[in-house]
Amino acid sequence: MITELVAVGTEILLGNIVNTNSAYLAEKCAQLGLSLYYQTVVGDNEQRMKDTIKTALDRSDVVILTGGLGPTKDDLTKEITAEVMGLPLVEDAHSRELLDAYLKQYEKNDAQRRITSNNYKQAMVPQGALVLDNHNGTAPGLIIEKNGKTAILLPGPPNELKPMFEEEVFPYLRKKQPEIIYSQMVKICSIGESQVAEEIQDLIEQQSNPTIAPYAKTGEVHLRVTAKAESEKECKKLIKPVVRELKSRFGKNIFATEEKKTLEEAVVDMLKDQKLTLSLAESCTGGAIASRIVNVPGASEVFLQGMVTYSNRAKRKSLGVKKSTLKMHGAVSEKCAKEMAKGGCFVTKTDICLSVTGIAGPDGGTKEKPVGTVFMGCCYNGKTVVREYHFTGNRAKIREQSTAHALAFLRECIMEGVSKKD
Amino acid sequence: MITELVAVGTEILLGNIVNTNSAYLAEKCAQLGLSLYYQTVVGDNEQRMKDTIKTALDRSDVVILTGGLGPTKDDLTKEITAEVMGLPLVEDAHSRELLDAYLKQYEKNDAQRRITSNNYKQAMVPQGALVLDNHNGTAPGLIIEKNGKTAILLPGPPNELKPMFEEEVFPYLRKKQPEIIYSQMVKICSIGESQVAEEIQDLIEQQSNPTIAPYAKTGEVHLRVTAKAESEKECKKLIKPVVRELKSRFGKNIFATEEKKTLEEAVVDMLKDQKLTLSLAESCTGGAIASRIVNVPGASEVFLQGMVTYSNRAKRKSLGVKKSTLKMHGAVSEKCAKEMAKGGCFVTKTDICLSVTGIAGPDGGTKEKPVGTVFMGCCYNGKTVVREYHFTGNRAKIREQSTAHALAFLRECIMEGVSKKD
Repeated sequence: MITELVAVGTEILLGNIVNTNSAYLAEKCAQLGLSLYYQTVVGDNEQRMKDTIKTALDRSDVVILTGGLGPTKDDLTKEITAEVMGLPLVEDAHSRELLDAYLKQYEKNDAQRRITSNNYKQAMVPQGALVLDNHNGTAPGLIIEKNGKTAILLPGPPNELKPMFEEEVFPYLRKKQPEIIYSQMVKICSIGESQVAEEIQDLIEQQSNPTIAPYAKTGEVHLRVTAKAESEKECKKLIKPVVRELKSRFGKNIFATEEKKTLEEAVVDMLKDQKLTLSLAESCTGGAIASRIVNVPGASEVFLQGMVTYSNRAKRKSLGVKKSTLKMHGAVSEKCAKEMAKGGCFVTKTDICLSVTGIAGPDGGTKEKPVGTVFMGCCYNGKTVVREYHFTGNRAKIREQSTAHALAFLRECIMEGVSKKD
Repeated sequence: MITELVAVGTEILLGNIVNTNSAYLAEKCAQLGLSLYYQTVVGDNEQRMKDTIKTALDRSDVVILTGGLGPTKDDLTKEITAEVMGLPLVEDAHSRELLDAYLKQYEKNDAQRRITSNNYKQAMVPQGALVLDNHNGTAPGLIIEKNGKTAILLPGPPNELKPMFEEEVFPYLRKKQPEIIYSQMVKICSIGESQVAEEIQDLIEQQSNPTIAPYAKTGEVHLRVTAKAESEKECKKLIKPVVRELKSRFGKNIFATEEKKTLEEAVVDMLKDQKLTLSLAESCTGGAIASRIVNVPGASEVFLQGMVTYSNRAKRKSLGVKKSTLKMHGAVSEKCAKEMAKGGCFVTKTDICLSVTGIAGPDGGTKEKPVGTVFMGCCYNGKTVVREYHFTGNRAKIREQSTAHALAFLRECIMEGVSKKD
């Protein structure tokens, strides 16, 4: 079933707000096995909306429209869709009732707000349409079917759209869809995008069902393996040998096979499994590694303390980096990274301490240590290993790469045998 | 000049990533005075890409395409655009050189990485195209002109796209535009979006030239005042009284009137001006505030140390929070925030310490302190002020809001008279 998304609204068109609805709906469509070919954004302009809706209904079976259902003059999605599909608008008694109840409640909460007559335009629906109650706002959603085409109209605010989609639209579409799509994610770190691409080129060339799609993230590559079949079980059967092959090719570099699992979650899970505690000593990343770790719910079990030792004084006082090290080798040096990691372990009494010190730019680079030079140290079990990296790009990019690679480095260190001291 | 955005990539089409590029580019187009009518997303499918690019070039003067310029077989944007425009691909010597240098640098960093031949397809360009160097990745951008139509091809990763757009595409488009558009940004913090909207409703209703467009960011509202005229001088003259009016309405809540100035930059500038040093004691934000501060080049002058005291032990040991405070009031309490800020100042010997402690969820909420409860403390000049916040949303969203509001709170504290002790 070919599906298409149309977001209506000048705020999205002109970039005043980011179109998160389309990402949400697209993921749901993929989950439902709908073939999504296009997403379009169009402003609140009558002629261009008409053109867009016509084109969409011509080339797709299901068109999901979001936004433009509100009470204002600019809100035209319902009117134009009804016109394009050749259906008159009639008042829906149930919607009118709900609208009255909602608006009275609203008025009670805020004496300044009054019910305006244009609110009632929200109770008008195309003849024969299925009306979807809106429990979080005033504009009802609509499912309109005619001549084998379906238009689904949903309110723009995500907190109105999402529950309506999940409660009513998802089950409706599931019933319409005979085939199931199922996909499995394989997430890889510590190897570059083009190397991954080359190593799976033969698989991609042979692929039909399932397909493999690579996605490059900073410091990570995600491979999505997707199968189409009559049941989820059948899909899983198709996917299994492909995932097995990927596992044999990328081995330890695979940090997750779950859709939503992040690199930081993989690291936190490993620490939990091995009952290890972590501290961080960050200079150029400035708290960004800690921030990613803390984004994992329950990270507090293993992540005890982070230190952002941005000044030399802080490196000395908080981590015990030697004055002579800073003087002779500088703050961005193998020796300093080592002392930071060692000192971090000592001060925080954690099993592991990861340290990062580097030159993020734009200033501070030298011929020997250009901008992008970063040293990372990892102290565990009495040993400290240090690695040198060279990143490119602007300050933000260098910091982002340092953060991603630090997590991958930490993961490698844990895998290579961190164990509690006896 | 009619403009259109086309984002290419199955990843965006299927909702694996949110299309933030389109929001960014749409805002830039508005700033340039280009008439943006459509945004489309299409997957990595040859036929549908061809149809989309043809339609876009038919109905618009300038088509900005993003994504699909990488080294993999799936990356087809350049090839298909060249085909639709009837131009052969030729190797660009300069791009080949840059690519070689970039890849060698990359290889040097990591002996595991090898240059793969498919990388070189990125040096092939449509004949006569203007090549835009990519300083943050391998795929160059392209500007292709033919028969009065312009196609602009940009890499998909935002950290490659944005600098390329700002350095090369923006000035290029500015030259093409006969009328001058000039805009001035007014950035506001410490007031909510709907309050800002209400306070400028009269201005927005009257507006014609200049216009005021509000953009809601996390913890900030940006108002872009845009004028169209024959010269920049004329534009500035039109904008001046409107900006003056906004300044009189929002006063101290305006933290910047420069396009690129961030809230953290405003804070770092204030600290530098007043020769004040800063430390941070973060719990639920987990280093995210430090990370934003460190993103300001030269922040090291004022930001001496950050502490991510995620565990109770770290709060006690590093900041001297009392055991009794944690026991009686809990780590998320006014008293704990106060002791964290005070302790931070004492330990780091900085003039100011900002502390944040809260419940980011998904667990840990109670009836008295639901998920989203956050306390922030600021200690300066011997005084400590604490503020309580209640945020909504998931863990990431609560942490993001906490970080943004912490910077705004810090700014308010500095403005209200932080001064060095004599």
